[in-house]
This record gives sequence, C-alpha cells and structure tokens, in this order.
Amino acid sequence: MTLPTFDDIKAAAARLRNVAHHTPVLTSSFLDERTGNRLFLKCENFQRAGAFKFRGAYNALAQLTPEQRRYGVVAFSSGNHAQGVALAAKLLGLSAKIVMPHDAPAAKLAATRGYGAEVILYNRYEEDRAAIARKIQAQEQRALIPPFEHPHIIAGQGTCTLELFEQAGACDILLAPVGGGGLISGNAIAAHHLSPATKIYGVEAEVANDTFLSLQKGERVTIPVPPTIADGMQVTSPGEMTFTIMRERLAGVLLVSEEEIKHAVRVVLERMKILIEPTGAVPVAAALRNELGWRDKRIGIIVSGGNIDMVKLAGILTETT
Amino acid sequence: MTLPTFDDIKAAAARLRNVAHHTPVLTSSFLDERTGNRLFLKCENFQRAGAFKFRGAYNALAQLTPEQRRYGVVAFSSGNHAQGVALAAKLLGLSAKIVMPHDAPAAKLAATRGYGAEVILYNRYEEDRAAIARKIQAQEQRALIPPFEHPHIIAGQGTCTLELFEQAGACDILLAPVGGGGLISGNAIAAHHLSPATKIYGVEAEVANDTFLSLQKGERVTIPVPPTIADGMQVTSPGEMTFTIMRERLAGVLLVSEEEIKHAVRVVLERMKILIEPTGAVPVAAALRNELGWRDKRIGIIVSGGNIDMVKLAGILTETT
Repeated sequence: MTLPTFDDIKAAAARLRNVAHHTPVLTSSFLDERTGNRLFLKCENFQRAGAFKFRGAYNALAQLTPEQRRYGVVAFSSGNHAQGVALAAKLLGLSAKIVMPHDAPAAKLAATRGYGAEVILYNRYEEDRAAIARKIQAQEQRALIPPFEHPHIIAGQGTCTLELFEQAGACDILLAPVGGGGLISGNAIAAHHLSPATKIYGVEAEVANDTFLSLQKGERVTIPVPPTIADGMQVTSPGEMTFTIMRERLAGVLLVSEEEIKHAVRVVLERMKILIEPTGAVPVAAALRNELGWRDKRIGIIVSGGNIDMVKLAGILTETT
Repeated sequence: MTLPTFDDIKAAAARLRNVAHHTPVLTSSFLDERTGNRLFLKCENFQRAGAFKFRGAYNALAQLTPEQRRYGVVAFSSGNHAQGVALAAKLLGLSAKIVMPHDAPAAKLAATRGYGAEVILYNRYEEDRAAIARKIQAQEQRALIPPFEHPHIIAGQGTCTLELFEQAGACDILLAPVGGGGLISGNAIAAHHLSPATKIYGVEAEVANDTFLSLQKGERVTIPVPPTIADGMQVTSPGEMTFTIMRERLAGVLLVSEEEIKHAVRVVLERMKILIEPTGAVPVAAALRNELGWRDKRIGIIVSGGNIDMVKLAGILTETT
C-alpha cells in the first residue's frame, strides 16, 4: 500500500490548474458570532459538477496510461463520484460507464448522462453494484475508478486544503466530513505538511459513525448502511488506506445529529445565501456544536458539495427553524 | 429636481469602499447554454444585510449634516430598505427608527432590531406608514430616508454597475429589477456613462407593471398594490425622479410571469448553489425568457438580494420543477 504524499498533492494541483474551479473561501460574521471562532468555508459546492469529487476523479483519470485511456473507465456511485468521474472523462476524452441505482434521482441520472457517460442501471435491492462494475472492468478492460481508496483520488481531494491555506492562511483547526475517508485523508496530509500545528478533525453523522468506532477500536469496523440525511456518509466502513492515514493524522472524529445537520444546511442557506448539501453541512454543524469549547480559533471547513434534491431541501426548510 | 450624475456615483463608491461588500460576479455555464448568451450576475444577495439597499442607505446617511446626525433618521419599509438603513445607521453611530408593519416576518423584525434600530410597528390595514414616519420626522427632527426617490439613494445603488463593469467588462445588455426604480436608475446612469452602447432594460413582474405602463403612457401611472411574489416590486408607481431617469435611459421594460420568477429562483439555487430572492430572480427570468431573441450577448444582471423567508422558499421548491 503506497500512501499519497504531499508531493502527490502538489502534482495533483498542477494537473487541476485551469481545469477544476479555484473555489472561494467564504466567511460569515453571523457564524463567527454564534460560534465564538472565525470560520473559513472552502466552498466545494461551487466546484465543477457540484462537489470536491471532481478533483480526485480528474487527478486519477489524468494519470491513466495511454493503453488504459483507450479502454475508458468504469465507476459505481449513486452520488457525487458519478458526476465527478463522468465530467473528468468527458474533459479527457475518455469513455465512461457509471453503475447507478435504477431509483437514483432523475436529476442525478440526467446530470451523469449529460456529461456523456453511459449509465448502467442496477436494482439496489437485488444486485451488487461492485460486482457489476468489476464484471464491466474485466470484460471491457476499463479502469475501475474507486470513490476513495486510491492514492490518486486522495491526492486530488487534498488540493482543497492547499487552496484554503493559500486563500485564508493556515488554520488552527481543520474540519471535513468523513464518508469513505478520501476527502479528510488528502486534506490531512496537506494540512499536516503545511501547518503541523493544525488540529485535524473528521466529522461524521452520529448514525454513520463507522470511522469514529474504527479509530476507537484501532481497527476498521463495519456498520449497517447508515440512515443519515448526509448521503455522502452512507458508507459502512473506512477504506484500508484512508483508515491508515486517518489513524495517523486525525486528532479525532466529531459526531453530529441529524437535526444539527439539517439546521446547518438551513442556517448557511438563510444567512450566507449559499446552498450546501447535508454532507457538506456536517462539519459546519460540528463548528456550531463546538463540543470541545473552541474559542477565538481559526477553523477551516471543507464544505464537500452542494448537490441536494430540491424536494429534500424543501423538507429540511419546512422541518427546521 | 437635481438628478444624480456619474460623479455622484463615483463619490458614492468612494464612501462605500471598505464599508459595503465588493460582491462577486458569478457566471453559470448552464445558464449560458440555456440562454445562448453569456450572463454575468452581480450578486447583491451577498451584500451586507442581504441586498443592494445598503449601498444607497449608507451613501445617504453618510452625507447628513452634523446637525442632522444628532437627531438621527427615520424610514418606513417592510423589506430590504429597513435593514439597509438600520445597518448604515449603526455603522455611522446614528439613531434610527424604522416603521414596519406589525405582521412583518419575525426574521425581518429581528434583523432590523439586531442592527440596533428601534422598530415602530403599525397596522398596515388601518394606518398610513408614510404619515407615521412624517410625524416622527416632524416631532423628532429626524431625517426621513426614502427608499428610492433621492439622488443619494440612487447614486449609491449605481455603484453596482461600476463594480460589475470593472469585474466583468462592459456588457451589451444590462438587466435590473424595477420596484420604485432606484436601482435601475442609478445603474442606468453608470452604465450609460461607462458604455453608451449598452442597452439597459428594467424588468418587472407582469402583475407589477407600473413602470412598464408609465413608460408606455409617457407619464407616471399608479396601479393597485401588485400581488407578486417579488416583494421588492410591491410598489404602485415609479418615483418622479426615477421615472425621469428611466424615461431617458431605458431601452424598455421587460415583463415576466410569477411562474417564471419562481422557476428562476429554483434554477439559480439548484445550478449555481446560491440563494436569490424573487425580486432578484426577475431579471434572471427575463434572460431565460429571452423575449427579444438575444444571441451571443454579454448580459449583465443586477441580482438585487437574497432575503427570502424559508417557508416561502420551501413553497417555491415544492411547486416548481
């Protein structure tokens, strides 16, 4: 297992230059006042395809050999990874097949197809998407692009913090959501290199605490598919590579409730006028909860993305106050 | 009647430097593709107090005499003007009384009070808010700050286009919503001076077409309070000063339906991940409708603000597709 290094992240940043959006870092006097700290939101909701996933996907696809490029790629995802891979493939002129559940939101299917990818539908109650993808990989010699467990993916995601620290200066604390761990791992490597004093925390939904439990136990724990509104966290265990990195670099994993996640989506929308998806709201919720009693800290927050179904959003706005 | 000039707008910009936010100009490949033009959204939804109104209010308050400052200000508004005046007064250390309807949304009352203003409630079905404000003005010698009909207000609003053309270059077409006409008037003066070839259009909701009718008739027309979701357009006639400027500078007024306004709020939220209020969505809706068949034009759009009640927003998201 070759772990990604800071140099890999710098190389990823060079590949992404003028390809990925250099997303803004936004601040909010309201949130600062509420938390007693100074928050810097790295807004990957403004990233191409609406989420950080494009960074890792493009970084991985750009490093395929000419041989691999000829056969194209395959990936499975019901979320942002699908669109990230599809867009990266389009930009690099590669063929892409994405395995998606047949009952995925129409908007997500349309977006993935809109980037020119072929969508392979499967029944999520009866079929195994990983098996379907591996079969396509074997039959068509396509490169399988994993959602998080790959050094090129992790290095691509780590470019968020390169930019964040450039834009806002180094932070005392760095928060990022943890699904499979790709985002936090890459950013932990970057933050540790640039500012060893920065304390790095992953944040999970309480009901999606596989990484919290894994770090507690010292080994990877698998939980049932978590019933969280943060769909980027519907992962049952951290990756082997991401777990290794997280165990080394994280000061800990913080947990927030479903109510806190919804509240954070709403507050950011109402006060900052920007739309963030529930997974992206998870670290904002942790800053609002401020369990560890931070005060006057500079807190960097990786807001993973802004892709949320409008019906789901309407529900959040109706439920919360 | 002394109309504001381009020099007044430049002077306003100097007053607003480091006080008002230099709001971003955002683009969207989705909207560009959909309209066949290139749109530049001047995002006053990110302005302090959530709308362009702060620019004019601060510019007006900053020019009060020392004598006037001692007595403070009074204004009447159920919308963004209230918060703009309240915040400007707070920053300048002036006392402010704002006359607001007793059934105004709690969030708006709280925000206005949050800026330190005293809120005077009135019953909008039985009382005349202008009369109440004039009485306070007379009794307490406070300066009455009008929402649009004043050269200092108009000059302040015009700074949007100074920034827009600096950030994005001159545009072929400039679109802005028309309530009382303060925003479009100031921006028309700025745009005409900087780029005489730019065609400037006001945009109204079909049911709030007082300026459309006034320009058609060549004199100010008064309509009943219009039942539009664009609450910044619940104005029954243009001002005398703003009408004079609009008659001279506008290429015309475009109209959009309530459905088109709601759709524009939704599309901008879903695709651009930013929250704009219905009034701010009105010119976006005109760009989407593209009634005049523009093609490959650079279209500047002043997005007036981002203040919208979350329940109202949930309704829009549930209704539209």
